[in-house]
Amino acid sequence: MYQLFIGYQNYSSWSLRPWLLLKHFNIPFAQTVVPVDGKGVNATHRVYSDNGLVPCLHDGDFRVWDTLAICDYLAEQYPQMWPANRQARARARSICAEMHSGFTALRSQLPMNVRLRAKGKENTPEVAADLNRIFVIWRNAREIASHNQVAGDYLFGEFSIADAMYAPVIWRLYCYGVQLPADIQYYVDTMLAHPGMQEWEQAALQEGAYLPHDALIEQFGGARE
Amino acid sequence: MYQLFIGYQNYSSWSLRPWLLLKHFNIPFAQTVVPVDGKGVNATHRVYSDNGLVPCLHDGDFRVWDTLAICDYLAEQYPQMWPANRQARARARSICAEMHSGFTALRSQLPMNVRLRAKGKENTPEVAADLNRIFVIWRNAREIASHNQVAGDYLFGEFSIADAMYAPVIWRLYCYGVQLPADIQYYVDTMLAHPGMQEWEQAALQEGAYLPHDALIEQFGGARE
Repeated sequence: MYQLFIGYQNYSSWSLRPWLLLKHFNIPFAQTVVPVDGKGVNATHRVYSDNGLVPCLHDGDFRVWDTLAICDYLAEQYPQMWPANRQARARARSICAEMHSGFTALRSQLPMNVRLRAKGKENTPEVAADLNRIFVIWRNAREIASHNQVAGDYLFGEFSIADAMYAPVIWRLYCYGVQLPADIQYYVDTMLAHPGMQEWEQAALQEGAYLPHDALIEQFGGARE
Repeated sequence: MYQLFIGYQNYSSWSLRPWLLLKHFNIPFAQTVVPVDGKGVNATHRVYSDNGLVPCLHDGDFRVWDTLAICDYLAEQYPQMWPANRQARARARSICAEMHSGFTALRSQLPMNVRLRAKGKENTPEVAADLNRIFVIWRNAREIASHNQVAGDYLFGEFSIADAMYAPVIWRLYCYGVQLPADIQYYVDTMLAHPGMQEWEQAALQEGAYLPHDALIEQFGGARE
């Protein structure tokens, strides 16, 4: 059975992605939470993961690290994790890679914090630009799904790695109370209703860990309701 | 025929990767240099690439952006671009993804500058840590190739996407005059002898563009020989 090493579920946006993918496709796995303290990689982390980062998938003795590599490793066994249409699949790869190395303003200024229920406040221009780009990406994916007549309310119709890669954005939009256009809100609601997202939220709510930036969010990021 | 949009060949480390991959596998393509000025994405860039970044591959009207996504798009047609062994392929994916989102000290402090011939100077601890991690990665790949009895002097024996992804590191080591252990130097020399790397170097040497950080390198980065 696969073993997935993840960070705290309240905070670890990268961990959510392969976790949700495994859950969606009903693939059995054991999970271990590594106490990542937000202070960078230390030797203990490398016990679980060669690059010192979570998530890391152990398949017996063999380790696969990095979220994208884990997704592709799994997709070799479960090709339905990528869209079936070749161009849709290529587009999914482009937007997953864009998330993998981009959107630094969104990721740093609105860190994932599943417990948080903040009132919406004005985003910085950099965060607004990141969000606008994400909305373009999502709408383009939906157009491709529509063009290919693939049913389903996920990005490319059926749930794919693309939805898993953008899943932390869903929590950011929800937890920071970002006002959304109707079509974007519909996709956010679709994802929030996913049983895997709900299971992840419950785990995050029951988690006792608090990282230093959580206090910063309380101070600067808007009051909790 | 594919059309690849790239940045200046002297500077654009991301552009080198798919370019070298296409060259190695003798895949015909046209190339267009987009005048990327290092000042961030502007509207002109999005004419060529949806996320405003190079490289971007055009396959007729269809665009594939992001280096990793381009590599995977090509690898669907040319599966030999990834190692044949499943675990070797997974490892190649892990280390390509690790490069895709990591090694920020190396990338920012030793920017690719193919023309540069600097005398080696002491690296910062952050750059040294990045380089040490890369050497671990390379040696591990070579061990996997040896274990699988795959011939060839590239990372996983035969040339793969992994070599393309790490190709800019070769120029960094060479152009900044970094002293190397013998086994690492051997791999660097192997890559420097690749006809594609030599063709890229000639193009960079003949290129007339100078970006602002080039002056900074002359000032702080060690004298040119």
